[in-house]
Amino acid sequence: MSAPSPDTLAAVLHHADASLDASRGRLFDLLRIPSISAQPDHRQDCVRAAEWVRDQLTELGFRAELRPTAGHPVVVAHHASPAGYQGPHILFYGHYDVQPVDPLDLWHSPPFDPQLVDGPHGKRFVARGAVDDKGQTMMFIEALRAWKEAAGGIPARITAVIEGEEEVGSPNLEPFLIANKNELAADMALISDTGMWDIDTPALTTMLRGMCYAQVTLKAANRDLHSGLFGGSALNPINALTKILGDLHDGDGRIQLSGFYDKVKPVTNAQRSQWDGLGFDERTFLGKIGLTEPMGERGYSPLERLWARPTADINGIWGGYTGTGSKTVIAAEASAKVSFRLVPNQDPREVFEQFKRFVNERLPPGAKAEFEIYSSSPGIEVNLDSPWVRAAQSILTEEYGKPAIMAGCGGSIPVVTSLRSVLGLDSLLVGFGLDDDQVHSPNEKFEQRCFHHGIRSHVRLLAKFAGG
Amino acid sequence: MSAPSPDTLAAVLHHADASLDASRGRLFDLLRIPSISAQPDHRQDCVRAAEWVRDQLTELGFRAELRPTAGHPVVVAHHASPAGYQGPHILFYGHYDVQPVDPLDLWHSPPFDPQLVDGPHGKRFVARGAVDDKGQTMMFIEALRAWKEAAGGIPARITAVIEGEEEVGSPNLEPFLIANKNELAADMALISDTGMWDIDTPALTTMLRGMCYAQVTLKAANRDLHSGLFGGSALNPINALTKILGDLHDGDGRIQLSGFYDKVKPVTNAQRSQWDGLGFDERTFLGKIGLTEPMGERGYSPLERLWARPTADINGIWGGYTGTGSKTVIAAEASAKVSFRLVPNQDPREVFEQFKRFVNERLPPGAKAEFEIYSSSPGIEVNLDSPWVRAAQSILTEEYGKPAIMAGCGGSIPVVTSLRSVLGLDSLLVGFGLDDDQVHSPNEKFEQRCFHHGIRSHVRLLAKFAGG
Repeated sequence: MSAPSPDTLAAVLHHADASLDASRGRLFDLLRIPSISAQPDHRQDCVRAAEWVRDQLTELGFRAELRPTAGHPVVVAHHASPAGYQGPHILFYGHYDVQPVDPLDLWHSPPFDPQLVDGPHGKRFVARGAVDDKGQTMMFIEALRAWKEAAGGIPARITAVIEGEEEVGSPNLEPFLIANKNELAADMALISDTGMWDIDTPALTTMLRGMCYAQVTLKAANRDLHSGLFGGSALNPINALTKILGDLHDGDGRIQLSGFYDKVKPVTNAQRSQWDGLGFDERTFLGKIGLTEPMGERGYSPLERLWARPTADINGIWGGYTGTGSKTVIAAEASAKVSFRLVPNQDPREVFEQFKRFVNERLPPGAKAEFEIYSSSPGIEVNLDSPWVRAAQSILTEEYGKPAIMAGCGGSIPVVTSLRSVLGLDSLLVGFGLDDDQVHSPNEKFEQRCFHHGIRSHVRLLAKFAGG
Repeated sequence: MSAPSPDTLAAVLHHADASLDASRGRLFDLLRIPSISAQPDHRQDCVRAAEWVRDQLTELGFRAELRPTAGHPVVVAHHASPAGYQGPHILFYGHYDVQPVDPLDLWHSPPFDPQLVDGPHGKRFVARGAVDDKGQTMMFIEALRAWKEAAGGIPARITAVIEGEEEVGSPNLEPFLIANKNELAADMALISDTGMWDIDTPALTTMLRGMCYAQVTLKAANRDLHSGLFGGSALNPINALTKILGDLHDGDGRIQLSGFYDKVKPVTNAQRSQWDGLGFDERTFLGKIGLTEPMGERGYSPLERLWARPTADINGIWGGYTGTGSKTVIAAEASAKVSFRLVPNQDPREVFEQFKRFVNERLPPGAKAEFEIYSSSPGIEVNLDSPWVRAAQSILTEEYGKPAIMAGCGGSIPVVTSLRSVLGLDSLLVGFGLDDDQVHSPNEKFEQRCFHHGIRSHVRLLAKFAGG
């Protein structure tokens, strides 16, 4: 297959347009599989989702298989280089797993019964995983399908790696990349798990925050106690835990772990002025989620706080009696999940040690603290000068009629780090989510318009890489 | 029936001894009914427990019935005055409801399958409610039975009020007492829901702490948020709740609600020296529950902190993701149950207002706080000069061969307040629990020796009141 002509590209784009309902139907089939990676009950569902993805890729001419890990399997699929192909060997990364769905009672429809509903931007898809990352992964697979069906073949050399543990911090992916380093050699990585600036403005993500996600359990008495008989003498671990975690931030929103900011790289003036030029209105951003007042670190602009400053958030807390009514108990223990979003240069392992020290130094006498770490990844910056970034800028401008924003992202995509450190690959982060997609929340959705443009953008990108 | 002779008393005590296995069997029947008042699922079980108690009292010659309330029914039973009876009309109060059983996995046997097991003091009963208050209530009922079976009749005029909502703060009992004030007229109240000093030393409880039990929910965004996309800008209600509740105490263990200590009555020197003379070893007390270091308010003796100083304990806290693994969520809301143990003169309604003010003054911008109050009762002191207190001191000395301790109790028995304020009754608090009975905790137990002495003590007390 030689470099595709403009007519071929037009035909493939036309086919993608005409096949949109079928594309959505295939996405809905995948969304019906409740592949929640965090919950052991859903182990078989994760396998089913992996098999489903494998079968799609096999149908498109890939040599595809499930590869075991210590956790959920990875789908690995290879598409050979078309004759005469001069472009990069693309490693496409996606994930078929999704977040837990609780609180279930806030969903307006069952999370694994995908719905096509009307919204202000036309049709949208509502389901857990609609955008993150089943929807975004399927845009790429549907672009491949459009090429195959309309042009008789896929115009690029591709290795696909679709994992099943992204939502639990990808604990087995890096070992897998290391163990299969030669097989997974490529020229660049392509990842679709990020967002647009707004529904009309595409974005490339060039800065990602990292993550240190820890759990702490404070233990006191060897059993639950009656608060009347022991109150005033016995240590209450919930009192102690709130006192300790209540000190995580000072009055200016600065995180109080000793040494936490030592390696934080300040934002350059150039970055700051580019971001300031975006006209981001934080009150509008917060208004969409029912908030009015910005929180966070005093002295930084909103996009700096969201993209380039570290955070500390308690993601969950529990202890004692949490049922209906009252129980006069002093609990034996109390726990919290605490995560730190990190910026480039901060070492997540160091932050975990700083957190342990922070808690241990504040423990009341007789209390014991136990720690677990669930995920650990540094923040990263993408090389803006790579030819793949320039190619993506160009096709997004063609598709949307306006240039793409060079954005930061407050979230973490640890695989970007692993792809660079293990395989030596720069990642191209081109995604089509929106801020209000309710990622990780009840009623997660994906705009059909975004899905459609996403398929078309991937169609164009493949043509571009193939020399078209 | 005339005043019982020493021979009659000896015969009744002997019968109580000989019937111990049967007494235990009846208690176990009651313990098998899971009458958890806090949990709506157990509403029918509460009715069953009430009916069971009613049937016992009917069998013993009482005119007994279930009386409806807005919550669980009250068992009211009357035993007429025996001919020639000169003693007090006794109002006996007990409760048939029990605390929830979670965490269930810490129980060594099912909580509603009572076990007879060996312990350092001989046999003990293990079940939810073994001591609190089914075991203690059944001591009195078994004493009545011994009188009926061995002496042909019960020697006193008695009204029994056995309620089903003590463990949820008795919300409907005071209205019930008010509505039935004439029917429930008596000379004194007898309550068996307190503890001994140790297994060989009986106690009368003469000071009880009160209670203000509140729940607070902090609300922020209108849905759960992705901590990567919103962290650094959006308010995290768990962060905010821990910061607020972490300020409940200062470094000296003083509660920081404004005005909280204004009405607290200091302990008299006489009280302090009596309590100091008990040789209470706080480290031994805490050692039994796996703790080493006393907590609480600096500058007060252990028994003062446990009996005569107010406390603030977070009894439960919850928010965000609390399942297995990690979820990078900023929750929409976070809640806590917070209770204050109060001492005489503190007004629980004032404390609730102080707590609301404490939270509201510390709310970050954009947060909303919602409050509920679950129980509210002042602390009280018992009149030491009543003839009933002196009668109880005397029979306990006979039964145990040593005088009873005049103790405080850190727990709350709101009914004592209601009995005084509504019916004008002083309460006699004679109980047989031990500190290590694991009241409100997994593996609640009651020593058979305590149960047995308790039955015998009630047999003696009835004789004493009847002039024997």
